[in-house]
Amino acid sequence: MSLTKDASEDQEDIKSLTMNTSLVDSSIYRPLVHLTPPVGWMNDPNGLFYDSSESTYHVYYQYNPNDTIWGLPLYWGHATSDDLLTWDHHAPAIGPENDDEGIYSGSIVIDYDNTSGFFDDSTRPEQRIVAIYTNNLPDVETQDIAYSTDGGYTFEKYENNPVIDVNSTQFRDPKVIWYEETEQWVMTVAKSQEYKIQIYTSDNLKDWSLASNFSTKGYVGYQYECPGLFEATIENPKSGDPEKKWVMVLAINPGSPLGGSINEYFVGDFNGTEFIPDDDATRFMDTGKDFYAFQAFFNAPENRSIGVAWSSNWQYSNQVPDPDGYRSSMSSIREYTLRYVSTNPESEQLILCQKPFFVNETDLKVVEEYKVSNSSLTVDHTFGSSFANSNTTGLLDFNMTFTVNGTTDVTQKDSVTFELRIKSNQSDEAIALGYDYNNEQFYINRATESYFQRTNQFFQERWSTYVQPLTITESGDKQYQLYGLVDNNILELYFNDGAFTSTNTFFLEKGKPSNVDIVASSSKEAYHRGPAD
Amino acid sequence: MSLTKDASEDQEDIKSLTMNTSLVDSSIYRPLVHLTPPVGWMNDPNGLFYDSSESTYHVYYQYNPNDTIWGLPLYWGHATSDDLLTWDHHAPAIGPENDDEGIYSGSIVIDYDNTSGFFDDSTRPEQRIVAIYTNNLPDVETQDIAYSTDGGYTFEKYENNPVIDVNSTQFRDPKVIWYEETEQWVMTVAKSQEYKIQIYTSDNLKDWSLASNFSTKGYVGYQYECPGLFEATIENPKSGDPEKKWVMVLAINPGSPLGGSINEYFVGDFNGTEFIPDDDATRFMDTGKDFYAFQAFFNAPENRSIGVAWSSNWQYSNQVPDPDGYRSSMSSIREYTLRYVSTNPESEQLILCQKPFFVNETDLKVVEEYKVSNSSLTVDHTFGSSFANSNTTGLLDFNMTFTVNGTTDVTQKDSVTFELRIKSNQSDEAIALGYDYNNEQFYINRATESYFQRTNQFFQERWSTYVQPLTITESGDKQYQLYGLVDNNILELYFNDGAFTSTNTFFLEKGKPSNVDIVASSSKEAYHRGPAD
Repeated sequence: MSLTKDASEDQEDIKSLTMNTSLVDSSIYRPLVHLTPPVGWMNDPNGLFYDSSESTYHVYYQYNPNDTIWGLPLYWGHATSDDLLTWDHHAPAIGPENDDEGIYSGSIVIDYDNTSGFFDDSTRPEQRIVAIYTNNLPDVETQDIAYSTDGGYTFEKYENNPVIDVNSTQFRDPKVIWYEETEQWVMTVAKSQEYKIQIYTSDNLKDWSLASNFSTKGYVGYQYECPGLFEATIENPKSGDPEKKWVMVLAINPGSPLGGSINEYFVGDFNGTEFIPDDDATRFMDTGKDFYAFQAFFNAPENRSIGVAWSSNWQYSNQVPDPDGYRSSMSSIREYTLRYVSTNPESEQLILCQKPFFVNETDLKVVEEYKVSNSSLTVDHTFGSSFANSNTTGLLDFNMTFTVNGTTDVTQKDSVTFELRIKSNQSDEAIALGYDYNNEQFYINRATESYFQRTNQFFQERWSTYVQPLTITESGDKQYQLYGLVDNNILELYFNDGAFTSTNTFFLEKGKPSNVDIVASSSKEAYHRGPAD
Repeated sequence: MSLTKDASEDQEDIKSLTMNTSLVDSSIYRPLVHLTPPVGWMNDPNGLFYDSSESTYHVYYQYNPNDTIWGLPLYWGHATSDDLLTWDHHAPAIGPENDDEGIYSGSIVIDYDNTSGFFDDSTRPEQRIVAIYTNNLPDVETQDIAYSTDGGYTFEKYENNPVIDVNSTQFRDPKVIWYEETEQWVMTVAKSQEYKIQIYTSDNLKDWSLASNFSTKGYVGYQYECPGLFEATIENPKSGDPEKKWVMVLAINPGSPLGGSINEYFVGDFNGTEFIPDDDATRFMDTGKDFYAFQAFFNAPENRSIGVAWSSNWQYSNQVPDPDGYRSSMSSIREYTLRYVSTNPESEQLILCQKPFFVNETDLKVVEEYKVSNSSLTVDHTFGSSFANSNTTGLLDFNMTFTVNGTTDVTQKDSVTFELRIKSNQSDEAIALGYDYNNEQFYINRATESYFQRTNQFFQERWSTYVQPLTITESGDKQYQLYGLVDNNILELYFNDGAFTSTNTFFLEKGKPSNVDIVASSSKEAYHRGPAD
């Protein structure tokens, strides 16, 4: 998808977007292009794969159809999409044997060569689907497998499950890939409370050997969950760089520095048995609060690296408003690349960059494109403007570049900000993205009048993020680029072609996000020098 | 200081605490036992040392006496204390040659053996004081030294400065220690924007050799600042452990995951030239927003490991209210130890623990001690109580242990909290510390009516922190311990004997923090299931 569409393109495609469930029309919060469960509870994405024989994307997810809170029995919910914007909902694909058990997170592979022996010629190679998941029993977590011969809609559990049992209650979330060089299956799985990502290998998906441990790396928090390995292309390789490098992802909950749950990643090399990170730095995938349990697709088209995260946070996911009869959504489906990005004037780092991935680039339009030159640091002709989404779908996006003049005299006492206010069409509520000249940092304020937001102590409303400018001129002018995607109760911000992102949910008390004001303010001695007398 | 004092002890010592400046009596926000500048601007602590010949602690700090914002020329402000609670203010100790320059952060050592040649017999060994600091010039940052022969009140700059010049504008914050085994001086200094902590060694404080680089470790953010190495005692060593291990600290700004500035640390081994961390994990010193640029004292009594941080955040430090004519304070002086701490049921980690360090343990009293048994998860006899600080100094502390019953039936829909409300004596404002049973996590809400707090987008008001219980019984009862220190505009929380801390400033619109209510709430279906109709 191009992030620099012409603003004159019409919005017909957005207007025509509807979920093909009947739930959307009367919905209050339900996003349009982000996957939500039809009813009930959703958490981690599972079993992501692309069926090239049907040109269909399959997304499974942790699902409690019986209530809008997490709880056992837990199933793999199931949805499919051709365009990654609209979704068909299907019956849960895998369920537990008993009500006090759960089919926990896991992944799906396509066993083209029938290494597992589950298939015969009646199943075409592109649909030889094997799910690898955690079977959560009252006193143990084991890794189990199941296979599907109908394209991923129903599954038969392997009769000799489990395939891995180490007698642990904290052992979960297998993600399996095919490693071409050794012609083996490779599983990453979390020994959660030992802070270990274990790497197992197998020739047949049934017999697994422990190959290595990736231990106590990065930010550790309470425990590790939802690991994964995938390859990503280096956009701007240096001499000697490979075309792609490996990325290890893992999720932490609770104990994120932001509170609750968070995803981190490492860039490095993988030889089929061991992952070696390039350095010992900790990097988070997203600077917002609602991005967890990321997983990459198996068999994505053209070997692209695409994936999705659960867009909520365990600190409040069970308490957010649920008037539409469901809780939680996924993030947008995103494409991942590696890029050398300046993180300060003297350094660049190989950063995992992301952008929304749409099958057809014209499926979602950029509503407005702005090029803002903040030359005076006061309100100039481009501020004070606004654009309106003429429909009431709650869905809009925008692309923006802006330049901050480096020679303007501003002292720390001044408050100079540029703010994008995303407003309700029925109230004065607005969530805001702003840039503060003093800090040279962005802030996000998702405060609304929502009773939930006002009273939930874990739903922090103010965020900030440091973004190194795309370019800094000799005179100190700083240029930034921003793509924003607003979809009812989720705001996704992609700074500088996705080098920095922030994903946050929000809940308006009334109406839907529909209008965007662009405002600037500049004032001397902006703050009280003390309390009221 | 004992954290378990008898509640019956009287509060005479607290009442008698006053700063020996005239600024306190009429102050609005000024803390009593936390160091603030008499007037003007303060940031990083510098040159911390203990003069054993005078039983006096010296604290220098980044100081702009001319305004309440950061700005050049920048000096080393200077204060001394015998008890680390009350402070004598002195003239700035070191200043720049020109108004567009700054004496930036650095450290002090005592050159007992006159390795530098700066001293003769007229200066007693305990007062052979050498400062090592960054000289910030318009186009370069160099490491310079100066010496004092009057006990640290005035300094003579070395005539052959700089002692290290690598022609960089981003090279600062030297912290020097004496490494006994090699009988050498060891400097850690930040090559800030290369994400390197450089280790230099010297025999005479004048000639330095680069020994190693500690590069791209931990969370990296925008840049590294204020590194340091110190030894800390292992409280509960395992077989084969040394008595002490080395701790590397460094500070990051901007780009903290919480926004702005933050301090991190690594535990490992040091051989005089190279620091090797025990693992590749990232650990932050404090989970709050106001703890930066930590430095350890040189020559602390009994080889104890004590230090102090600047208690503010660069995101808003220049904008906080300044009605008292100054901005910023230090944290309390803290003592540091290492302790194996459970961070989940299956793991323990060697954690840097901290507690307030008071020279005389009776100097500050615990106002009230509570042992709360939250057995019913509703209001029991110990909830609904309150304690009042009978004076209006704004200073109070408390010690508390409480137990959460593990067998109580609570679903995710319930909201069950235990909350400590620290209230103004003149308004309804209260900052809160709470425990949420669903999350098993603590939240902090520092919201007040302050115009600054309400409008500054970077002054996040809600925080949370995960604290692994001190003990979990077989029936699931969880016990926590908390020591809290409130001093006018700063709240320091030390959970589980300092294994987890959170340090945050706040600004009441009216009055001083004086009263503490302990409340519990329990409700079913606590949150709206949707917005208002």
